[in-house]
Amino acid sequence: MKDDRVWIWGRHPVLEALRSRRVSSVMVASGRKPASVLHEIFETAGRHGVSIREVPVMELETIAPGANTQGVMALVDIPRLGTMDDVLAAAIAAPQKAFILVLDQVQDPHNFGALLRTAEAVGVQAVVVPDRRSAPLSGTVAKTSAGAVNHLPILEVKNLVRALEEFKRAGIWVIGLDASAKVTLFDADLTVPIALAIGGEGGGLRRLTRERCDLLLRLPMRGAIESLNASVAGSIAMYEGVRQREARL
Amino acid sequence: MKDDRVWIWGRHPVLEALRSRRVSSVMVASGRKPASVLHEIFETAGRHGVSIREVPVMELETIAPGANTQGVMALVDIPRLGTMDDVLAAAIAAPQKAFILVLDQVQDPHNFGALLRTAEAVGVQAVVVPDRRSAPLSGTVAKTSAGAVNHLPILEVKNLVRALEEFKRAGIWVIGLDASAKVTLFDADLTVPIALAIGGEGGGLRRLTRERCDLLLRLPMRGAIESLNASVAGSIAMYEGVRQREARL
Repeated sequence: MKDDRVWIWGRHPVLEALRSRRVSSVMVASGRKPASVLHEIFETAGRHGVSIREVPVMELETIAPGANTQGVMALVDIPRLGTMDDVLAAAIAAPQKAFILVLDQVQDPHNFGALLRTAEAVGVQAVVVPDRRSAPLSGTVAKTSAGAVNHLPILEVKNLVRALEEFKRAGIWVIGLDASAKVTLFDADLTVPIALAIGGEGGGLRRLTRERCDLLLRLPMRGAIESLNASVAGSIAMYEGVRQREARL
Repeated sequence: MKDDRVWIWGRHPVLEALRSRRVSSVMVASGRKPASVLHEIFETAGRHGVSIREVPVMELETIAPGANTQGVMALVDIPRLGTMDDVLAAAIAAPQKAFILVLDQVQDPHNFGALLRTAEAVGVQAVVVPDRRSAPLSGTVAKTSAGAVNHLPILEVKNLVRALEEFKRAGIWVIGLDASAKVTLFDADLTVPIALAIGGEGGGLRRLTRERCDLLLRLPMRGAIESLNASVAGSIAMYEGVRQREARL
């Protein structure tokens, strides 16, 4: 299990995290002029009893090399689920039917972050990722997720296939996106409880993951290129779930 | 009008461009071992009469600093439309009803590339972008587009508002994605001829663009975060168009 604290940066992301009360501490580059957002960071941190340390800007650059920190970073607690039982409990407690996202070795931090952002926007209850060969939950992921990491419970599992089997036993359909599937996304019923599995940038879903899916779906492709960006494909599938579920209400 | 030739890199992208017959010349870092893909590049270039120059690897690094070129680059011709008349002609000639993508100052090359990739996949007939404050058609855009730039006609216009007015006069509905819209994407009819306008990463559609739209649509947002990644939102809208049009067949 990785540490569940992540450094994030940038004035608006830090302020947003402070408001969601997940920040342990804040660092500000010394000598920064108190622009309005920075002023609000000081104020919000003070209100929630979060300490702010002024440090040389070099210290920020050491933690996030090359990042545009805007002179401020925060150490945030990322909600992590402990076990598959927590995932199933979160799915059962939610007002809508189970909607879980499974990421099978998504390694690009921008794709990972964009998928979390969409998942949070559509009300996914939990995200399950294998603990090996996934992008680590970094500041870049947090930034690309637009703060979704602050809200969305994530579980890292040792054995993804076993997790999929647990979903199936709990009555949750495991649906995988796969370019070679026979059925298209728009011909499937996504109003049932689902765990939606998205593959990594290179080869899509791994064979063992694919074999464990109850149903494989592809996106219609009308042009010359053969696949979509992983975060785009996953997000289209998540929103098709939203569309079908809203139409059913 | 920018130059319509772009350097692309990487073995598979170069090979794909060679196959689509858009390559003017190829450069290979001298001393590279002829792996199978590189061998195929030599063969395909030879077949199409495209010359290959062996150059010091430094020369590749000068053209694309920091890029993972895998020791090979190609200069490709990007299809560019000359005028709005060409865009309208392309839309009329296509088997499906007009489906045009308008990008209003999308500045991130990864978002630009991902949007082109989805646009090619759904059979968009042309892409219209303003010539100022859009991401330039760079090697990064070409790479992220997965080769879509080789197939998809793009027009740069001086005045985007005027272009939207031309669409309207031609009977094409101008539909904008906007987070504050009253109607959701799933409640609109996208089977009519459309030009779909997507805004940039920061503020979405510009006011003048928004005011010129016949219809503004938003994506349902069920969580705490307020917006999606620009390429994700645009791609979801394009695929909702595909879904509706296939359902209508």
